[in-house]
Amino acid sequence: MNDPHLQLAVCDYPEHVPKDRWADYARQQKALGLSYVRIAEFAWARMEPREGQYEWAWLDEAVEASAAAGLKVVLCTPTATPPAWLARRYPEILPVDREGKVRDFGSRRHYDFASPVYREHSRRITHALAERYGQHPGVAGWQTDNEFGCHDTARSWGGASAAAFPGWLEAKYGTLEALNTAWGNAFWSMDYSEWNQIRPPNLLVTEVNPSHLLDFYRFASDTVQSFQSEQVAILRELSPDRFVTHNFMIFESGFDHYEVAKGLDFVSWDNYPTGMLEFFTGWGSEDLKTRYARTGHPDFISFQHDLYRGLLHRPFWVMEQQCGQVNWAPYNPLPADGAVGLWTMQAWAHGADVVSYFRWRAATMAQEVMHSGLLRHDETPDRGHHEIEGFRLEQFPLGAVDSKTVQPKVALLHDYESLWLYDVQKHAASLSYWAQAVTYYAALRGLGQDVDIVHPDADLSGYALIVAPALTLMTPERAEHLEEAAQHAHIVFGPRTAYRTASGRTPEDGQPGVLAGLLGSKLLNFDSLRPGLSVRVQGPDHACEVHTWAESYRALEERHGADVVYRYTDGPQHGRAAVVRHGSVTVIGAHSEELIEHLLAGELRAAGLPVERLPEGVRLSRRAGKTLVQNWNAEPVQYGGQTLGPVSFEVMDD
Amino acid sequence: MNDPHLQLAVCDYPEHVPKDRWADYARQQKALGLSYVRIAEFAWARMEPREGQYEWAWLDEAVEASAAAGLKVVLCTPTATPPAWLARRYPEILPVDREGKVRDFGSRRHYDFASPVYREHSRRITHALAERYGQHPGVAGWQTDNEFGCHDTARSWGGASAAAFPGWLEAKYGTLEALNTAWGNAFWSMDYSEWNQIRPPNLLVTEVNPSHLLDFYRFASDTVQSFQSEQVAILRELSPDRFVTHNFMIFESGFDHYEVAKGLDFVSWDNYPTGMLEFFTGWGSEDLKTRYARTGHPDFISFQHDLYRGLLHRPFWVMEQQCGQVNWAPYNPLPADGAVGLWTMQAWAHGADVVSYFRWRAATMAQEVMHSGLLRHDETPDRGHHEIEGFRLEQFPLGAVDSKTVQPKVALLHDYESLWLYDVQKHAASLSYWAQAVTYYAALRGLGQDVDIVHPDADLSGYALIVAPALTLMTPERAEHLEEAAQHAHIVFGPRTAYRTASGRTPEDGQPGVLAGLLGSKLLNFDSLRPGLSVRVQGPDHACEVHTWAESYRALEERHGADVVYRYTDGPQHGRAAVVRHGSVTVIGAHSEELIEHLLAGELRAAGLPVERLPEGVRLSRRAGKTLVQNWNAEPVQYGGQTLGPVSFEVMDD
Amino acid sequence: MNDPHLQLAVCDYPEHVPKDRWADYARQQKALGLSYVRIAEFAWARMEPREGQYEWAWLDEAVEASAAAGLKVVLCTPTATPPAWLARRYPEILPVDREGKVRDFGSRRHYDFASPVYREHSRRITHALAERYGQHPGVAGWQTDNEFGCHDTARSWGGASAAAFPGWLEAKYGTLEALNTAWGNAFWSMDYSEWNQIRPPNLLVTEVNPSHLLDFYRFASDTVQSFQSEQVAILRELSPDRFVTHNFMIFESGFDHYEVAKGLDFVSWDNYPTGMLEFFTGWGSEDLKTRYARTGHPDFISFQHDLYRGLLHRPFWVMEQQCGQVNWAPYNPLPADGAVGLWTMQAWAHGADVVSYFRWRAATMAQEVMHSGLLRHDETPDRGHHEIEGFRLEQFPLGAVDSKTVQPKVALLHDYESLWLYDVQKHAASLSYWAQAVTYYAALRGLGQDVDIVHPDADLSGYALIVAPALTLMTPERAEHLEEAAQHAHIVFGPRTAYRTASGRTPEDGQPGVLAGLLGSKLLNFDSLRPGLSVRVQGPDHACEVHTWAESYRALEERHGADVVYRYTDGPQHGRAAVVRHGSVTVIGAHSEELIEHLLAGELRAAGLPVERLPEGVRLSRRAGKTLVQNWNAEPVQYGGQTLGPVSFEVMDD
Repeated sequence: MNDPHLQLAVCDYPEHVPKDRWADYARQQKALGLSYVRIAEFAWARMEPREGQYEWAWLDEAVEASAAAGLKVVLCTPTATPPAWLARRYPEILPVDREGKVRDFGSRRHYDFASPVYREHSRRITHALAERYGQHPGVAGWQTDNEFGCHDTARSWGGASAAAFPGWLEAKYGTLEALNTAWGNAFWSMDYSEWNQIRPPNLLVTEVNPSHLLDFYRFASDTVQSFQSEQVAILRELSPDRFVTHNFMIFESGFDHYEVAKGLDFVSWDNYPTGMLEFFTGWGSEDLKTRYARTGHPDFISFQHDLYRGLLHRPFWVMEQQCGQVNWAPYNPLPADGAVGLWTMQAWAHGADVVSYFRWRAATMAQEVMHSGLLRHDETPDRGHHEIEGFRLEQFPLGAVDSKTVQPKVALLHDYESLWLYDVQKHAASLSYWAQAVTYYAALRGLGQDVDIVHPDADLSGYALIVAPALTLMTPERAEHLEEAAQHAHIVFGPRTAYRTASGRTPEDGQPGVLAGLLGSKLLNFDSLRPGLSVRVQGPDHACEVHTWAESYRALEERHGADVVYRYTDGPQHGRAAVVRHGSVTVIGAHSEELIEHLLAGELRAAGLPVERLPEGVRLSRRAGKTLVQNWNAEPVQYGGQTLGPVSFEVMDD
Repeated sequence: MNDPHLQLAVCDYPEHVPKDRWADYARQQKALGLSYVRIAEFAWARMEPREGQYEWAWLDEAVEASAAAGLKVVLCTPTATPPAWLARRYPEILPVDREGKVRDFGSRRHYDFASPVYREHSRRITHALAERYGQHPGVAGWQTDNEFGCHDTARSWGGASAAAFPGWLEAKYGTLEALNTAWGNAFWSMDYSEWNQIRPPNLLVTEVNPSHLLDFYRFASDTVQSFQSEQVAILRELSPDRFVTHNFMIFESGFDHYEVAKGLDFVSWDNYPTGMLEFFTGWGSEDLKTRYARTGHPDFISFQHDLYRGLLHRPFWVMEQQCGQVNWAPYNPLPADGAVGLWTMQAWAHGADVVSYFRWRAATMAQEVMHSGLLRHDETPDRGHHEIEGFRLEQFPLGAVDSKTVQPKVALLHDYESLWLYDVQKHAASLSYWAQAVTYYAALRGLGQDVDIVHPDADLSGYALIVAPALTLMTPERAEHLEEAAQHAHIVFGPRTAYRTASGRTPEDGQPGVLAGLLGSKLLNFDSLRPGLSVRVQGPDHACEVHTWAESYRALEERHGADVVYRYTDGPQHGRAAVVRHGSVTVIGAHSEELIEHLLAGELRAAGLPVERLPEGVRLSRRAGKTLVQNWNAEPVQYGGQTLGPVSFEVMDD
Repeated sequence: MNDPHLQLAVCDYPEHVPKDRWADYARQQKALGLSYVRIAEFAWARMEPREGQYEWAWLDEAVEASAAAGLKVVLCTPTATPPAWLARRYPEILPVDREGKVRDFGSRRHYDFASPVYREHSRRITHALAERYGQHPGVAGWQTDNEFGCHDTARSWGGASAAAFPGWLEAKYGTLEALNTAWGNAFWSMDYSEWNQIRPPNLLVTEVNPSHLLDFYRFASDTVQSFQSEQVAILRELSPDRFVTHNFMIFESGFDHYEVAKGLDFVSWDNYPTGMLEFFTGWGSEDLKTRYARTGHPDFISFQHDLYRGLLHRPFWVMEQQCGQVNWAPYNPLPADGAVGLWTMQAWAHGADVVSYFRWRAATMAQEVMHSGLLRHDETPDRGHHEIEGFRLEQFPLGAVDSKTVQPKVALLHDYESLWLYDVQKHAASLSYWAQAVTYYAALRGLGQDVDIVHPDADLSGYALIVAPALTLMTPERAEHLEEAAQHAHIVFGPRTAYRTASGRTPEDGQPGVLAGLLGSKLLNFDSLRPGLSVRVQGPDHACEVHTWAESYRALEERHGADVVYRYTDGPQHGRAAVVRHGSVTVIGAHSEELIEHLLAGELRAAGLPVERLPEGVRLSRRAGKTLVQNWNAEPVQYGGQTLGPVSFEVMDD
């Protein structure tokens, strides 16, 4: 991790090809400028073909081949894919879907994190693998499992998880009376009189109690966390001085990433820009999806970079980087010429120390044969390989060791509990927590800002502007923390701020409950607007149309309540405040890209930050004294007195 | 029920708030002009926290608090929400969905009406409650359970219902030969040779036999009816001189409401105009849904009023009246200013004696925290509360006691068996029974008519025009009854009239079977038109386009067969009759809003009724010597020489 | 089968009507010019009302009634509808759907082909029926079961099929090592260590291994084949000199029809043109579906004719021919005037010797009451009956006995394994195997060609042009076979050619693997284009836009590699070859109706075949020295110097 500049890596699968290829591949990888190779995350059945019968010879040889070529190996615990013998002998390890169906062996991630039996096997194979390779000089570090939560697997809605859930609740609440009150179970006669009456909140007649859901999600998240921590403890013991990481996923919402990241040396994530844009349906019009079909959308991608950098406030890895077409979206176009370079350097600029391409050679078998690699099926270099050949990595310094090399003055607050509560009762079908968060984020990026995405309870001392797009869950401690932050920073809140308490109820004194003092206002009403229905707002020098969501406020009657910045000029909230400001704190209650951009620009200026309205598809990202100027358009653009080619970047000294 | 004018009420939930609020709330309710308060429909777990262990103290106090403030209490049997201890100790009470999955505890309505075990508990809790409060002076009456059928719960597709279904069939048919013939089981070798071979018609390989479905629906409907009648009998015994009602639901199709209403003193229903329009997908374009998003559509709402008034031919209650946003549709806009008043007075004009708002204070917990109440979460009066403050109830007399105060000359025939048969084999995906019925209804309302919605076998003697939009099921008795009605009234039939016999087969002599004499014609063909495909019809003075459905007829060869009114002028039925008239009876075979409106206007005039083409969004409703002129538009309109404000009404003496 | 010209038939159901109708119906059928009547495919419960208790009297009488009128009877084994007593006493015969749910009794096809218990009953009833009627002089032949695979029933995903699948695999592979390699199970640790660990590939966490799916589909197909062959063997033994056929279905993809057709005397299929177009979603715009709503699309229909003629390279029957509206599509319009005649004569021209209408009288009961027959419910002749009255069958000779009377010079290659592999990993959501195949087929038909649809391993010696739209699966033997064909014919391949080996992996040397020599090129990349995204190609004299799919090639470096015919002029494959030609072999990598039509026209000319661009909706089909000129438009068209009426045909001598 002391490399002076960006390093590259690749995901490789020696078990997928004849062993006579291994040494050649390693040499070619080294020749291409790659430093690391990640292997073995799906190789359990080859490590242990029958229970307790280990076969290490092939892996010894594979690790050796990489090491001999000068590559550093990232080894993985193989627990994402329990073998057939394990799933069939111990079917109680299998997870259960929301519909109550057992999710069977035959693909991947077919395990319940809460299964004591699976935990035992997880520890056993981790121990065996760490014992054999933990101190191997070629092994630089470890990845735990693979893509926790992928395919909606963070939660199992029956089986081992259902069995463990009541105990987790009892440990949390102590008494059923406390739980019944916290969940508001009086509502529909949902009081429990024994712990074992409680099940996961699926297969219900109608809507779920959001408090029930929230605690089930917390339970599942804790279970992912403890599953991983068992592996980490073993790796720490048997493989000292190696790093441990995990590769997280795009918009994965199945667990609290801040909790699960704890105990890792750094965070990794898997970056598939085209599939992400095509697959994720909550944000972006069809036109936007077509426009950016071959590059992905810059803000959609960097949102992830900034989020994952923020989990530990540390540089991260992209553990899997798309380098050609993917295979898992409804449409899987070829990336534009230049896209692999643009993705790679964007990752660097947002804090990636290593970018690892997925994968070396396209798979000739099974689920992913339509997915690309750096080599084609026939082992000829594919388009991504050719792009990488032209990289000049020395242009991309990492900055001083152990210092924060990406240093935004703007923070965007994000937490998973707010996400869960928002999405369980969306109230307006076409808006979601992620869509609302990305809307604010994209506005900031379009105004030329670097952004930290951070937990609301994190240290906020370095920021001039703090933006909380959808901070639904509020506690007294959090309110106090934000009040302190408001002493030195401007804060902007979006709709649904502080709608909920820690247990998922609403404050008894209405929204925003304990945050009312800071906001200087209280919520009056919220209005959910179907497509085609809109209202208008008018501010001091600007008016615009509002879609999807409109909420209104009244200033607190006490002196020094909030000032009204925008009012609704039509609709049921005609004359009511749509945007209020209280000292350095602004609340935006109306959903409108135009309004958000306009207000954020003002708040940035008020916070003393330079604002630049960037052209469509142009983005700036700064790291270690450099600015990466990016053109994500398929056409050249004029910017800063020069022409940027289509899908290209320039590195400039600050 | 001897009130001289419209009374107001509210739904309240003492178990949701601290008891120190109860007396205050009651006083505030009284001060707002409310007369009744409905409570306790979801409070079983608080009445009986453990099996056999009753806790009445809190409910004693809550009832007392209301009574002390001068409110009349409507108590509910709490059987819509069996407690956790009941569902876990007796899991056989749980219903099974169409996919064969048990519908679990955790929300509401998780019971199978056919479960003997649940019946026993239902009788027990009803008895205990009625024993304690049946003669309480503060208790004015009872609501049974809550919203039968909501969330598709009228039918359970396995478990106790599956066990009871064969016995119901045996009681009905006596022999399997009779059943096999009635169902046409020869069709696909579906003959049964033992009663216990018969199951609910779910989980099949392909389409269901409609006769099998029809009898299963009848069985389920009978089961709802007998479930309620057990409660009613107990209430009658233990709570003399109190009314008993049930609150029915918007477009609920799970049981025969005419049967289930029998034995009640009056009918109630739950009126949620905005959610109803957004959620119900069978009628109305997206543009119409946007136009009326903040008020609901007047005809959609009054269709329900007229239907529920018609169940017992008596004034009714709106037991739950939306008074702010709802939370259960994809979009949940705020109602327009004036909407609560307009909804309330429309309800009165269509026969409501009491309108009860849902709910007093917005819930601060669980499934419905996004739903409004008269008070906000923070106990401040919300928009609906402010509207009610301005009501002048004395403007809205109920009319003479025990007389029919709403007296339309137009009847629209509706029956649930026709609905079930129509919708199981729609033949044209975008048309449904309800959509066809509402199309005819809305045309009548747009022509200024008051309408009774009545069962086809009901007394039809008072009507000048009878409209049967989709009377699919025909029997000899029903045909005779209609022939008698035709002696004094004009009758208009829509498409699919008399397609089916009582067992769901077709007449062996073709459609309309036993009705051929009355119609003077027989069906030739029916034509299902995909969007984009249309045909044209030509009448004596009018031509138009037809969408979705087109059927044709031949006049009976006997003398005095029907006359052709409209013919198809293109398409496969070119030259065939689209509309025929036989004396006072007209059959409209082509689906076209324009055609229906044109023909109904003519029939109204022929029947001697005044016809007035109302402007878009303007409606008239008459009760007790008054006419309520309503403007449902968001803009003012000129009508009758005056300007009606947006979303407003005027009461005028006839 | 020695009839000099087209014969007509009808499907009838004596068990659906009183027996007093049988003789009359038979006489009327004969009088209408019908020669055959098919009966009894759903009559098991009437043949054997209780296990082992046969009732033949009614069937004796029904057969006799038809024979007495001079009709030839086609009898069916009734195994498509096992009776209730069978399904309830032996529930292990029921199939399991992809979601793991048992598919219950109550409609049809509720059996698992792999069930040993059901096999026994199938043989028993077949034996009993064949014993009684096998030598009856009125019985001309047999139909096995009915519509194998309809309602997705070819495969059962649990139960008996799940139990049989491992044994089938063991018989095929011998060792698990061979299977693990063939399936590429190393990919996600999917190696099996015992045969009984293997299950059908359903209920997985995420995507299926296509090799696993492919073998499961092969297993299911073999199981259908062996199920039928048991019946055929019994019929051959007990009913000598009668034909045996099976009626296949539109676009049915559940089994390999080439295998299942073996052992039959001729193939039949069920032709429902309007439902087919409305229901099948993979091909054709909404506008096209509206335009042809009343006739079906000519190429969609004749694709089936040509496919089914090609199974055995023999004339076929249409066993069920739509003659009015169907009831099973979302919309079910009336056919245009003339459509029944056009369908009938198109069938003849494409090789049908007999066309059998479905059904005599419209059913008055159960699932299909909305479906038409030649008689209406009331027994009056419906529209189809009237059309048939005007037929002059002598105009439609069958040609010489036992010779191939339809003799196209163009072959279109089709195989079910390519279909299965293509569709399991479509990569571009809106394209499918059938849609791609029909696109090429329709282009050929629009250019005036008659087409044989044949298996790629069939004799290809008679063809001047061979078109392989989507030949995904390639083996060395198949490659050699095609190389031989290229000696005498031009060959055109579409996209995805030779993407897969016989086990569903990709060739280790990239696509097209063993076909590289013939194509003179190798695949570079494939590009999946979302709606709205397109690229352009430029050829020597023509340029156009490409949608959905674009793949590129490089010429083999060896001398005599392929020539580039079209190149991409934009997008990521800019400058790469989109169409290549190598001697007589052309590969079209870009999906574009315009491009395909343009190139096929050129290849037809190069192959010495006359090309005629037919007007929209006009088609030519040639048989036995005649040409059937068809106008499928709702308007008259000018063609060949004459006016063709709307929805009409002319027969002309060649």
